[in-house]
Amino acid sequence: MQLIDGKAVAGQVKQEIAAKVAAMVEKGMKRPHLAAILVGHDGGSETYVAAKVKACEVCGFKSTLIRFESDITEQELLDKVAELNNDPDVDGFIVQLPLPRHINEQHVIEAIDYRKDVDGFHPINVGRMSIGLPCFISATPNGIMELLRRYGIETCGKKCVILGRSNIVGKPMATLLMQKSNPGDCTVTVCHSHTMNIKEECRQADIIIAAMGQPGFLKADMVKEGAVVIDVGTTRVPDTSKKSGFRLSGDVQFDEVAPKCSFITPVPGGVGPMTICSLMNNTLLAGQKAIYK
Amino acid sequence: MQLIDGKAVAGQVKQEIAAKVAAMVEKGMKRPHLAAILVGHDGGSETYVAAKVKACEVCGFKSTLIRFESDITEQELLDKVAELNNDPDVDGFIVQLPLPRHINEQHVIEAIDYRKDVDGFHPINVGRMSIGLPCFISATPNGIMELLRRYGIETCGKKCVILGRSNIVGKPMATLLMQKSNPGDCTVTVCHSHTMNIKEECRQADIIIAAMGQPGFLKADMVKEGAVVIDVGTTRVPDTSKKSGFRLSGDVQFDEVAPKCSFITPVPGGVGPMTICSLMNNTLLAGQKAIYK
Repeated sequence: MQLIDGKAVAGQVKQEIAAKVAAMVEKGMKRPHLAAILVGHDGGSETYVAAKVKACEVCGFKSTLIRFESDITEQELLDKVAELNNDPDVDGFIVQLPLPRHINEQHVIEAIDYRKDVDGFHPINVGRMSIGLPCFISATPNGIMELLRRYGIETCGKKCVILGRSNIVGKPMATLLMQKSNPGDCTVTVCHSHTMNIKEECRQADIIIAAMGQPGFLKADMVKEGAVVIDVGTTRVPDTSKKSGFRLSGDVQFDEVAPKCSFITPVPGGVGPMTICSLMNNTLLAGQKAIYK
Repeated sequence: MQLIDGKAVAGQVKQEIAAKVAAMVEKGMKRPHLAAILVGHDGGSETYVAAKVKACEVCGFKSTLIRFESDITEQELLDKVAELNNDPDVDGFIVQLPLPRHINEQHVIEAIDYRKDVDGFHPINVGRMSIGLPCFISATPNGIMELLRRYGIETCGKKCVILGRSNIVGKPMATLLMQKSNPGDCTVTVCHSHTMNIKEECRQADIIIAAMGQPGFLKADMVKEGAVVIDVGTTRVPDTSKKSGFRLSGDVQFDEVAPKCSFITPVPGGVGPMTICSLMNNTLLAGQKAIYK
């Protein structure tokens, strides 16, 4: 069994990005600039945004954090989005989700100029990914693809089961892994709450991507010997032994599943760090105008 | 075994559309207007476009056929697309594919205003479909969904195997059938040229959508008793007994597969007629400004 060290890979990718940025700056180009809008004070969102700002520093990006209280109106937020769309200094930006209930997230996502949509949530980027055209691929799926690539995991012709059909992980993961590409060319099955015999589906899989958000869902008897298991789950589970009062739990019962795997990602330290690193990569591409002019 | 009569359903749907158009006209609204651009004289394309023009008549639409010789430049074609985008009388339009080799089809598709993209090929429509937002869904997948709906075929929790991963059938079909909807909520597996044991995959399926373009690919020993089989294949096979010199062949070995099925579509007369009928439905929605303002 080989542990997939997402933290180490993410560190390496960020160093590679930093080197590219240094070369850009040396040529007189400007540093890529990522802006992030954070609404309210959700604990998870605060953590993620802080990590993104820190990653920007490591990569040599300029970053701007724009904060709003949670009583901001949708129109005020849309106005800020329009301002960032039109700001030539901002290469890419994100609006940290979730947003307060009175704001329609989809309106906000669609208001972002797709050429600056480094989260890859705009319908144009989603559609282009599905068709197989150059685009900003959303961070988590892209991070998983990078892990498969860097660990040289064979995917062509493999049976891949994806647990979960969310717009930000399950569906794009299915699209990417069935694509004519490497990684890719998998026979992909997407399972969800209505799947009849999820255990049997999983037992047939060479590769399992667990993205249901159900702590410890995937157990040893659901995994075949030698499988590759990618755990996307990051549920906060109360834990009094931690200073924060919680720990992150994956969708995989790691202790019992790991011994059967050829490769497995831990939680934390697997997919999580790669997510931010994919956002950094999209920001680099935005700064380089590598996808859209 | 019940034969799914796509021709009959398509006729019925067109009558329903015609009734809605009559009601629109009675209220003083204009008839929906579909324009089609046909480049060159490909036999298949001529047939399809003629059928579309005829379907427009049945539905009470205005239709305009714009013909170009195959030596038209990409720029001339893009100019015509821009003209149709800006023509307020045209509610929706299509550029019949395939285009001559010297023209980049993707450029043309992306040049079409997504609000008039009744073929549903523009990345925005593809992305919105994936996310589950209102959009123009491409004709063949939408036609298949309509057949499942009209025949009351249960899909929730069913295992569905899709043969083929094309942008116009396989991928959108997978997206639609895994969606939280009815029809939908299937456990979807997408098979393709790299799938290891396609026979075994098919034998597990409650629903098979065959869209590989390989005449007679799906045989009786690949189908379980009681399965629903939807045949999307329409390959022209030489046949000297026909006036045209060819017959249309599906991807299913119909004679041997049909007796095992609960429902099956024939070729011709199954999915084919529904495809044009979905285009008509999208044109109606465009005329009503029901999806985009």
